[in-house]
Amino acid sequence: MQTVFHLITGDPDGQRTALTLAENLAEDDTVDMDDIVVLAQADGIEPVRADGSEGDRVRSLQGKGIAFSACGNTLELKGMEESDLVDGVDVVPSGVGELTRLQSEGYAYIRP
Amino acid sequence: MQTVFHLITGDPDGQRTALTLAENLAEDDTVDMDDIVVLAQADGIEPVRADGSEGDRVRSLQGKGIAFSACGNTLELKGMEESDLVDGVDVVPSGVGELTRLQSEGYAYIRP
Amino acid sequence: MQTVFHLITGDPDGQRTALTLAENLAEDDTVDMDDIVVLAQADGIEPVRADGSEGDRVRSLQGKGIAFSACGNTLELKGMEESDLVDGVDVVPSGVGELTRLQSEGYAYIRP
Repeated sequence: MQTVFHLITGDPDGQRTALTLAENLAEDDTVDMDDIVVLAQADGIEPVRADGSEGDRVRSLQGKGIAFSACGNTLELKGMEESDLVDGVDVVPSGVGELTRLQSEGYAYIRP
Repeated sequence: MQTVFHLITGDPDGQRTALTLAENLAEDDTVDMDDIVVLAQADGIEPVRADGSEGDRVRSLQGKGIAFSACGNTLELKGMEESDLVDGVDVVPSGVGELTRLQSEGYAYIRP
Repeated sequence: MQTVFHLITGDPDGQRTALTLAENLAEDDTVDMDDIVVLAQADGIEPVRADGSEGDRVRSLQGKGIAFSACGNTLELKGMEESDLVDGVDVVPSGVGELTRLQSEGYAYIRP
């Protein structure tokens, strides 16, 4: 199965919860996961900043097979570059386009 | 592809973000959209009020092909009439029924 | 049709809205529902506590055919037992696993 987490909240507690939930899914042996993606957008972009407080956590989750994507519109709006993000975070043209595409391919959607 | 945005937040910033995200999707040339719907419900009904601060924004998005629907239960609860809404906003019996119906037809769901 | 509500908010007003929306769906005669599930997780676990302020409301909704599930990870994190929950609330290994499984089976997802 495949799931995309929509990380859009600007609340730091909510952001940490989102990362924990992605990890919970990776560790739940009762579901057979082929792909877990965390799509960061709007104020939810903070956790994937290379120099942010959650950078190490994101790197650790990448090591567990969780993929991270960032919304290109958000980067433009905030004056950020791909190089401002944790290595390996994939930049997509728009977060909403990616969420649409992934769900059309059968991904479940979870909005922490 | 088809997507429904669930506009339920009462937070004005969150409401504006929801409208921006719908517009981002309409403008993302990498996804081929057949339909974009914004379903307004509970405190998320405010942006579709005819005399609300986002009325002109909603009319502009309608002009770009984005459809708006409003939850009939919400209108009843708030003592509102269809005539209180921006012209062209479709009133559905229940927002949750519409969200269920659209997803069963293959719409992606995005909750800003 | 089948729908799962993701009850994750810690805001009491938002929690009550979530319960109202589940009831709205059960009562919407324009959609033919086979199953309605409310999945409680993180700070959204409060309404399904046996001794919580929403306990009677949850029991009433169960009587209308709405099923409730609780995230096992959340119970562990909060030091809670299944016996702390309203009778009949089903404990699942992880809330996110259950949300993934249900959507893969065709459930619509609604995040109040």
